[in-house]
Amino acid sequence: MADTNRQWLLKERPTGMVGPEHFERVESPMPSPDPGAGEVLIKTLMLGFDPAMRGWINDERSYLPPVGLGEPMRASGVGQVVVSNNPALPAGTLVQGLLNWQEYSIAGADSLVPPRPLPQGIPPNMALSVFGTTSLTAYFGLLDVGQPKQGDTVLVSGAAGATGSVVAQIAKLKGCRVIGIAGGSEKCQWLTDACGVDGVIDYKHDDVSARLAELCPDDVNVFFDNVGGETLEAGIDHMADFGRIVLCGAISQYNNRERAPGPGNLMLLVARRIRMQGFIVLDYLDRADEAYGDIANWVMDGKIAWREDIQEGFDNIPATLQRLFRGENQGKQLLKLADPE
Amino acid sequence: MADTNRQWLLKERPTGMVGPEHFERVESPMPSPDPGAGEVLIKTLMLGFDPAMRGWINDERSYLPPVGLGEPMRASGVGQVVVSNNPALPAGTLVQGLLNWQEYSIAGADSLVPPRPLPQGIPPNMALSVFGTTSLTAYFGLLDVGQPKQGDTVLVSGAAGATGSVVAQIAKLKGCRVIGIAGGSEKCQWLTDACGVDGVIDYKHDDVSARLAELCPDDVNVFFDNVGGETLEAGIDHMADFGRIVLCGAISQYNNRERAPGPGNLMLLVARRIRMQGFIVLDYLDRADEAYGDIANWVMDGKIAWREDIQEGFDNIPATLQRLFRGENQGKQLLKLADPE
Repeated sequence: MADTNRQWLLKERPTGMVGPEHFERVESPMPSPDPGAGEVLIKTLMLGFDPAMRGWINDERSYLPPVGLGEPMRASGVGQVVVSNNPALPAGTLVQGLLNWQEYSIAGADSLVPPRPLPQGIPPNMALSVFGTTSLTAYFGLLDVGQPKQGDTVLVSGAAGATGSVVAQIAKLKGCRVIGIAGGSEKCQWLTDACGVDGVIDYKHDDVSARLAELCPDDVNVFFDNVGGETLEAGIDHMADFGRIVLCGAISQYNNRERAPGPGNLMLLVARRIRMQGFIVLDYLDRADEAYGDIANWVMDGKIAWREDIQEGFDNIPATLQRLFRGENQGKQLLKLADPE
Repeated sequence: MADTNRQWLLKERPTGMVGPEHFERVESPMPSPDPGAGEVLIKTLMLGFDPAMRGWINDERSYLPPVGLGEPMRASGVGQVVVSNNPALPAGTLVQGLLNWQEYSIAGADSLVPPRPLPQGIPPNMALSVFGTTSLTAYFGLLDVGQPKQGDTVLVSGAAGATGSVVAQIAKLKGCRVIGIAGGSEKCQWLTDACGVDGVIDYKHDDVSARLAELCPDDVNVFFDNVGGETLEAGIDHMADFGRIVLCGAISQYNNRERAPGPGNLMLLVARRIRMQGFIVLDYLDRADEAYGDIANWVMDGKIAWREDIQEGFDNIPATLQRLFRGENQGKQLLKLADPE
């Protein structure tokens, strides 16, 4: 084992775009090699990156307490148990949980997200991508919050992302017509070819509202929004009566320096009896098996396509987070630190 | 019967504040004294005014078709059947429905809102105020959409209005803590003294957000919003986790010349898992008896206070609509044209 534990600590809260300058790379003493009862010492193998992480470093009330200044950045990851004081997680077990931007961590039942073993045969990358919380987010957000019915038109923004692409494909599996909004022809092509969506809108080149009018002549029944801002406003303009807007995130807004004006057409929610609802996947973790059962079947049957964008190197961690907000990642953003032993 | 039928026709669609200049007063031929099968000829006795009427004269898709240029302005009202070709509504019956800004109208089962008899003993003013659609709106919007639980904090904007004041009082009857937002000390005093709300915010004098923080230390579980704009944004800032925002209307926005920016804090809907939902009372008309049963009991038991602001005179109809948007009405805005015979 190493003598020191490399960590990226939150140095400063960003007011605009998050970048490497907001974190500090330190070498700290190794955590105790003698974890407390029920705890395990975990070596981080792979980290996952998610737009929601931008919200975790704002100093405001949210669904998780903010990461404190001087604390390691919070992140989901996959690791391997090095020393165990928990019979359910013996040394060598591959686990996932909130492992943070550090090489080693101590975790137990009291952790915000307690470490849980990877399902048999699932490699770290898949545990964080198609079997990760982004797929749970897609599953419960679409089915539980969005309540799509067969024949519905489902609109997905951020459709080429880890969550959006799974939303689009589950909606297709449920018999819906699916329109995806993504940035750039490469992402749009992948959505059409691999994910089988019925129509795509390239927000970098198309007039989103005009294309929505063309592609959704009967309007949108379920809008799964990962983007916010102008994309949300355009979607609202094309909602059908009794439509559902699933608010999953707002990647276009996370790095705003100041509160930006919101959609100016919320009155349409009244006239068209629309439900707009936010949700957080953590509220659904006790139903995760339900989702993973379906997702595993779909993956085995080749009905869900996904992509991973795997970066490497401890020093590249903060820059990798930024890739999400620049739209540079092609698929689930991951970073590999080590192989399992 | 008169020789001519006085009407106010929609002359021009307003782009900002609606006023008398957008309507034309005409004297038209009387409707046929020989109504078709199932139809009745109705003399208008009293008109009701509602902020939603502003939306009816915009040329855009909504829950009702827009009033056409040159057509009489749509309005709910109470009238008396003069000539009947419908055995269920004999001559002399007092009825309510969409009677429009005119002295006489023909209506039947095909009307947008077919005329229905007033409940026994209910005078025209009460049929349009505490037993009018504004109370149905309050009842179903709060209970069905808002789903308040005993002990919840309920925030109501436009709280001194016909809908808001009934919302506030039903919420009190359901065991909630109720905070009302209204404009001016007179309205706030009435809310406290007659409606029994637990706290009031005078948006004309108070810092709404600061007062919300004081009055709602545990945040708001149900926000019934009639106002929109900055009021909606301030309310969102103070929502509790899993809160419900009932979008009933946005009186602050109806007369905007252009689409105004919306709330800049919709991301809180995600972090706090908030449901924001619009509704239209017309969807609940088949359940009206359920509401009227409860409301009648509450009124008879003296548990619901209400006020009426009754103007008079056919020529004053368009100016009376404007009173709503200037906040001049104290209670349900009505205009009396004639007494029953």
